[in-house]
Amino acid sequence: MAIKVHGIALSTCTARVLLCLHEKGLDYELLPVDLASGAHKQHPYLSLNPFGQVPALQDGEVSLFESRAINRYLARKHKDIGTDLLRSSSLSESALVDTWMEVEAQRFYCPIGTVIHQIFVNPLRGIAPDEQVIEAEMNKLGKVLDVYEERLSKSKYLAGESYSLADLHHIPILVYFMRTAKADAITSRPHVSAWWDDISSRPTTVEVTANMML
Amino acid sequence: MAIKVHGIALSTCTARVLLCLHEKGLDYELLPVDLASGAHKQHPYLSLNPFGQVPALQDGEVSLFESRAINRYLARKHKDIGTDLLRSSSLSESALVDTWMEVEAQRFYCPIGTVIHQIFVNPLRGIAPDEQVIEAEMNKLGKVLDVYEERLSKSKYLAGESYSLADLHHIPILVYFMRTAKADAITSRPHVSAWWDDISSRPTTVEVTANMML
Ligand SMILES: N[C@@H](CCC(=O)N[C@@H](CS)C(=O)NCC(=O)O)C(=O)O
Ligand SMILES: N[C@@H](CCC(=O)N[C@@H](CS)C(=O)NCC(=O)O)C(=O)O
Repeated sequence: MAIKVHGIALSTCTARVLLCLHEKGLDYELLPVDLASGAHKQHPYLSLNPFGQVPALQDGEVSLFESRAINRYLARKHKDIGTDLLRSSSLSESALVDTWMEVEAQRFYCPIGTVIHQIFVNPLRGIAPDEQVIEAEMNKLGKVLDVYEERLSKSKYLAGESYSLADLHHIPILVYFMRTAKADAITSRPHVSAWWDDISSRPTTVEVTANMML
Repeated sequence: MAIKVHGIALSTCTARVLLCLHEKGLDYELLPVDLASGAHKQHPYLSLNPFGQVPALQDGEVSLFESRAINRYLARKHKDIGTDLLRSSSLSESALVDTWMEVEAQRFYCPIGTVIHQIFVNPLRGIAPDEQVIEAEMNKLGKVLDVYEERLSKSKYLAGESYSLADLHHIPILVYFMRTAKADAITSRPHVSAWWDDISSRPTTVEVTANMML
C-alpha cells in the first residue's frame, strides 16, 4: 500500500514531505485537499490533522501530521535506502542534523515565511505588501544568513559534509523566495549562494519543485 | 568529565535542558552566562552558539545549541537510562513524540511565549504590557489548547501513554504562565489541567523548577 500524502504540491509544507519521499525513492500518492473550499478545516480532514492544515501522512496504520515530524519518521523508517537524511549511525553527526533542523524551524522559517506571505499571499487577498514589515523581517533574516554564511564556509552542508534534512527543510520556501526581488539576500553571500545552487539542483529537488509554479 | 550546560536556571530554554538531564539522572555542571553584561553576544560564547543565546551544551567533543536538539541528543545517547523520552524502539511511538514535539515548537510556544514576554519582560523594561497583543495571543493559545484537551482525553500524555520530550518541552514556559492571571486557560480544561498537575509534580520537575523563582 503506497504512502498517502494529503496536501497540495504548491504548499511549502507539503513540498517538504515530497522532497523527502523523492530522496528516499518511495512510492506515494498525493491526495489533494481542497483548501479553497476549506476542506482542511472540517471533518474528516481534522481527524488527520486536528490543527486543520496540510500536509498529513498515512502509512498503513501510522497517521501523522507536521511536515518536519513526518520527514523524521520517513527518514528513520527507511534509513537504509536513498539518501541518509538523519545520519543516525553517528551520535555527533545526528546531533548536528537536529541542531540545524531546529535553526531552520526556529530562526529561519519565521522571517522568510512572513516575507513570502507579504509578497505573494497579501496581493491575492487584495492587500498591499507592507514594506515596513518586509524590511524588518529581511533584517532578521539577514542576521540568520550571516551565521549560515560563516557555517557554510566551514562545511559543505549545514550539518556537515553530507546533505541532510537540515538542508532539505529549507528548500520549499526558498524556491518562492528566489523568485522575488529579495533573492540577493542569498546570492550576495557566496557560501550560502553555492549551497543553494547545490541543493536546488539535486535531481529530486528539480522533480518536486517543478510543481511549485504559482 | 561532566556535561557542561552554559545558561541560567531562570531561562526557559536552559530549564528545558536541565529537565532532560534530571530525567536521565545525569551529572552536569551549570555554567552561568552573564546575560546582563551581554556575554552571550560576544566571543568566546559565540563559538558555543553563533546566534548568541542560551543554552549551549558541551559533552566531551560534542558542542551543541538549540535546547530541543540538545534534548534529542541526550535522550538518544542515554536511551537506556532514566525515562525513555523518545520511545525510539517503536517507529510509530517515536513518530508521535516527534509530531507533538513539533506542535509544541510550532504552535504552542509562540503565543504563550509572547504572553509571558508581555507580562514579565515588558515591565522589567519599563514598558506596559499591551493588552491587545495579550488577548490576540491568548486566543491563538486557546485554540491550540482545545486540541490538547481533545488529545489528552484519549491518551494520558501528548504522544501516548508515556511521558516523553513532547510533554517535557512544555514545562518551563508553563511554570511562568501558571503564575499569571491567565492560568485558567489551563485549569479550565479538565484534561489539560490533569496533565499539567501530573507533569509539574514529577520529582525531577519539582527539583528543576524550584530554581525558577523570579
Ligand atoms: N508546522 C506545520 C505547518 C503547516 C502549514 O502551515 N500548512 C499550510 C500550507 S504550507 C496550510 O495548511 N495553510 C492553510 C491554512 O492554514 O488554512 C507543518 O510544517 O506541517
Ligand atoms: N530556540 C532556542 C531559543 C534560545 C533562547 O531564546 N534563549 C533565550 C533565553 S530562554 C536567550 O538567550 N535570551 C537572551 C537573548 O536573546 O539575548 C533554544 O530553544 O535554545
